[in-house]
Amino acid sequence: VRAVSRRRKAAQTSESPVTTGGLTIGDVGEFGLLDALGLGKRKFRSGWVGPGDDAAVLPAPENPIAVTTDLLAEGVHFRRTTASPREIGYKALAVNLSDLAAMGAKPIAYTIAAAFPPDLELTWVKDLYRGLDEAAKAFGCPLVGGDTSRCATIFLSLTLLGQCARRGAVLRSTAEPGEDLYLSGNTGESAAGLAVLERGEDRADPVFAPLVLRHLRPTPRLGLGRELARRGLATSMIDVSDGLAQDAGHISRMSGVGLRVEAERLPLSAALSAAAARLGLDPLILMLSGGEEYELLFTARPEDRKSVAEAGLLCRTDITRIGTVFEGESVVLLDADGKPIPLKTGTGFDHFRQRT
Amino acid sequence: VRAVSRRRKAAQTSESPVTTGGLTIGDVGEFGLLDALGLGKRKFRSGWVGPGDDAAVLPAPENPIAVTTDLLAEGVHFRRTTASPREIGYKALAVNLSDLAAMGAKPIAYTIAAAFPPDLELTWVKDLYRGLDEAAKAFGCPLVGGDTSRCATIFLSLTLLGQCARRGAVLRSTAEPGEDLYLSGNTGESAAGLAVLERGEDRADPVFAPLVLRHLRPTPRLGLGRELARRGLATSMIDVSDGLAQDAGHISRMSGVGLRVEAERLPLSAALSAAAARLGLDPLILMLSGGEEYELLFTARPEDRKSVAEAGLLCRTDITRIGTVFEGESVVLLDADGKPIPLKTGTGFDHFRQRT
Repeated sequence: VRAVSRRRKAAQTSESPVTTGGLTIGDVGEFGLLDALGLGKRKFRSGWVGPGDDAAVLPAPENPIAVTTDLLAEGVHFRRTTASPREIGYKALAVNLSDLAAMGAKPIAYTIAAAFPPDLELTWVKDLYRGLDEAAKAFGCPLVGGDTSRCATIFLSLTLLGQCARRGAVLRSTAEPGEDLYLSGNTGESAAGLAVLERGEDRADPVFAPLVLRHLRPTPRLGLGRELARRGLATSMIDVSDGLAQDAGHISRMSGVGLRVEAERLPLSAALSAAAARLGLDPLILMLSGGEEYELLFTARPEDRKSVAEAGLLCRTDITRIGTVFEGESVVLLDADGKPIPLKTGTGFDHFRQRT
Repeated sequence: VRAVSRRRKAAQTSESPVTTGGLTIGDVGEFGLLDALGLGKRKFRSGWVGPGDDAAVLPAPENPIAVTTDLLAEGVHFRRTTASPREIGYKALAVNLSDLAAMGAKPIAYTIAAAFPPDLELTWVKDLYRGLDEAAKAFGCPLVGGDTSRCATIFLSLTLLGQCARRGAVLRSTAEPGEDLYLSGNTGESAAGLAVLERGEDRADPVFAPLVLRHLRPTPRLGLGRELARRGLATSMIDVSDGLAQDAGHISRMSGVGLRVEAERLPLSAALSAAAARLGLDPLILMLSGGEEYELLFTARPEDRKSVAEAGLLCRTDITRIGTVFEGESVVLLDADGKPIPLKTGTGFDHFRQRT
């Protein structure tokens, strides 16, 4: 369930009529399409969460059920030339598990719809499923069903079910002014790993290898997500899949709050620092705009700082307080002197517009 | 969750090593692929149903949850030239609901993964969702999430969740010798409707129109499926999506029983009779091999004949007793004199092999 932004502010203003004559999908882009379809504005009964968060939530007798669907299209989300089928399979499941992590949910099971060109080698498909199986075993999410067909290019869609904490799923829309903003692990490493692959650099180079691995075999923060949800510590949560700045923007818009990110607090890993220097890339930009990092970005009450730190220790995951929530709107990046650093807008990944 | 046949008999014999060197997906076909991946042989804990039935089943505190995933690829499952986007959307959801019906489950919600070519008109997509919405409202299955991307050809994957009866889902694998075999409604009409569309006949012709409608707007037998499940009447059940003969074969193989179908008992509708004559097609072949009919094929104990008839009356659905279950294997078609009519094998629809 990718971001179908429920723009609180936008919903309050009068709607402009949607003119669609002659427009193509490419014209409106992914987010425009979801807006045009009105998917973010649908009403659901109490206890339900529809499109717009990391997963949908359905009420159930004990723990609510989280459902998340993602699709991976060859040439858009992966290329057969830069990743092995086993890596593609592993990652396909891992990134969906990250959506469950961001709801604080425990994986139950998944289904897959897969379309392959008829001339694709069977060994490729077997290796894809080997990668899926590896992630399924590592994170406890068995394959229970699916469907296959043929297609001109490879197309995969996974749907995962998860069990939320009894107190419910952690949403994107429930941050409150005065709270702290946290990030698990660090961001930018996956983006640097992708740059290594795309530029055809030596992925076995010891400076690059860990970043490439991070890009190809992300680790969903399932344990931390559940712990934060179970103990009611995270007041809102999202996983970093579009980029830290953009994903912070989702929390900001959906919660109707502003988020202050202190650039100096962002955790810069030594590995990223070294690789960025070699690649001639700005680590700050990688940390802020790199997608597919699959860390958890969440808010928590200031009085829970000690408990949040404990949760990180328990789950053996670094947690960094990177900013605060304020009464306002949008995401503001501050330098060491507290002065705003301009954030480029529209740097997010749009599956219809970006050509890969 | 399409048929991943758990061939009981096959599993008892020694396995031949799977040689995959140089084989393509097209070589092994859809069912061969699932066998090669070993998806039908996986073990699940008690209370779980994995691949191989109309839906997977997950245990839950009160009613078990059914999950079914289907994919629709342009050029394989639909063509933009023969169906409108609204018809495609309606049907996409309706056929998945039929899988829930075959488990005796009540729809809860669905998600969709959709990939579109960037040059596709936005109005096409809006009409697709209009069709989806129509079916969602008609059968009570709201859209709760999804994902979109671009792709060379249109690709849709739907995942539905359903609530099973408390006593559990009705499986394909639980028919017993001595039971009766039943069919809801009638088969062949959808196949005739497809022939009308494929041959470019006048779909507004009063002889053809109802069959085309049946093909484009199938009605999942949700009410009947639930009633049969709730009252424990159906001992096994499947929906007719591959063709009556082939779907009977799934029950036969998975239950380890033989099925006797009496040709004379098969319900031939006046509409099919008239259309088949005009099209020069054999109605019996249409009734037996026509896929996408979305009727329920189920078994029940002989002592429940009256109760089964009552369930049909209650759900305003014709139910016909078309045969019996016997100790044996495979599906046998008998003529009016009780003599076997040879059934062509391999007439089922294989998404990798069949070129459309």
